[in-house]
Amino acid sequence: MDAAIEIYKKIGALTKTDAGYIGITKLFLELHKLCHYTLESKDRTPLVSRIPGKQYFVFRNERKISRAINTELYIEDEEFIEKTINYIIQDQLEYTDATNITKVLYTLAISFCAVIDLSKDGDQKTPGTFFEYFSCHWFAIMLKIQPQTSIDVLNLDMKTSLTTDYIFDLGTNRPKIHMPVKTSTRERVIQVWAHQRVLDGVYGTGRFLGMLVCLSETKTNNRLLDVTEICLPDQWRLYQMFISQMYRIYYLDTPVKYIALNNIFPPIYVKPLGEFFYEASRLFEKYQ
Amino acid sequence: MDAAIEIYKKIGALTKTDAGYIGITKLFLELHKLCHYTLESKDRTPLVSRIPGKQYFVFRNERKISRAINTELYIEDEEFIEKTINYIIQDQLEYTDATNITKVLYTLAISFCAVIDLSKDGDQKTPGTFFEYFSCHWFAIMLKIQPQTSIDVLNLDMKTSLTTDYIFDLGTNRPKIHMPVKTSTRERVIQVWAHQRVLDGVYGTGRFLGMLVCLSETKTNNRLLDVTEICLPDQWRLYQMFISQMYRIYYLDTPVKYIALNNIFPPIYVKPLGEFFYEASRLFEKYQ
Repeated sequence: MDAAIEIYKKIGALTKTDAGYIGITKLFLELHKLCHYTLESKDRTPLVSRIPGKQYFVFRNERKISRAINTELYIEDEEFIEKTINYIIQDQLEYTDATNITKVLYTLAISFCAVIDLSKDGDQKTPGTFFEYFSCHWFAIMLKIQPQTSIDVLNLDMKTSLTTDYIFDLGTNRPKIHMPVKTSTRERVIQVWAHQRVLDGVYGTGRFLGMLVCLSETKTNNRLLDVTEICLPDQWRLYQMFISQMYRIYYLDTPVKYIALNNIFPPIYVKPLGEFFYEASRLFEKYQ
Repeated sequence: MDAAIEIYKKIGALTKTDAGYIGITKLFLELHKLCHYTLESKDRTPLVSRIPGKQYFVFRNERKISRAINTELYIEDEEFIEKTINYIIQDQLEYTDATNITKVLYTLAISFCAVIDLSKDGDQKTPGTFFEYFSCHWFAIMLKIQPQTSIDVLNLDMKTSLTTDYIFDLGTNRPKIHMPVKTSTRERVIQVWAHQRVLDGVYGTGRFLGMLVCLSETKTNNRLLDVTEICLPDQWRLYQMFISQMYRIYYLDTPVKYIALNNIFPPIYVKPLGEFFYEASRLFEKYQ
């Protein structure tokens, strides 16, 4: 546990100066090995799933249980994980696919969260911050850009700086990517559309492509040992119609109810995060 | 403590059916007597104030300290409190003024919060929910309307219901009041402008007057025993320019940095809550 926190802190420090640094990828793999080893010795309890077509379990120790873990997405095979990550960093995406990348990234992210969930003084903040570093790293690798987290506002007589989620600036006359990150959204998600709206207003609509990255929307009842998914697709549609337009919403464990938003008009594009790796290069070339 | 929670729950139940009920006013006074009695026996420690012109103290017991309490706004005189509240409910506002009402309401609200802060298992949620009931009560009394917390959306082929903060509907061709309530705002306040934006979008701009009610923006450092005020006036200006327009922002302990927003163009109208009582009738008559 202490060793895991140590690596997590090292990743945090490195992210500030070079979020796409290959050394961070290695630290994520090292961190995962550690978490995998810790979790192997823990008991697993299957959850009663209230989510059609998905199965979940939790890790547990004497005191606590972890968050819900999607059985299909969780990979035990360390070698497979390392191989897939290497395809990403060596730009050999043709040897793997979006589904495998999603599973591998899900496994890396959820293992660390589960270890923190089981620890004595593990707070909610550490998994959230970890997941920010984690998502930021893959975007920085694919876009080859160091993100910023604040941006100057020059608006007539008003000069201030706006604190933002991660912003990847692809350069003059090319899009800027606005990337909020959440382990789960719940009622706080309206902030994402509101921040996008402020960026649209200050800099002009369309200049920022909003790309939200989420882990999952599961909610575990610790007493009943069942798991549900909290989704508000109708609210999302209102936000997308009346606040601003998000360009993509990526999930590691994608809720079926949000996937359905791709197919109704006006659509909201919700996809597994693995698909980003295949879209990113297209996006990158399109505006070259 | 148990007796206080008992009254708090009773208020919650009554609020659902008749938020402006005079019986609730009596319960708030009864609750305050109880809290006042509890707090009288507690030690007080002055805080080092980092806020120009304001002094604060905390109540403390063996284990815990309460949130910061503004010395100037906190009233000890029970009789004065009861008298002022009676002026409100008997529609005799000319016998008191906005400053006194603000002080009295501040005292009622902060006493309960302080008692919860000092209790063993007092969570953050109880003071927040209490303050919603509390703010809602005075609006319901002044507007003589039962608020709703969800509203139907009929938008071409889309039919859904939108969960909202309190909405007071003054009737056909008159304004509807959108009242979010927060004990403090911090980074979550963008939600308020975003919800207003959705209402503007769905029903038409100007149909809802957004009136945010807040308790204070103090932040106590428990170790250093000092108190600061967390204010982001530049962010508020961006939200007001680019997301939506809030009509009023009321505070019980109003931050000086937000008061300044009244005097720069375009203004945001930030006022002590006591002023609502004198504006409400004007607002009420204006659109009669």
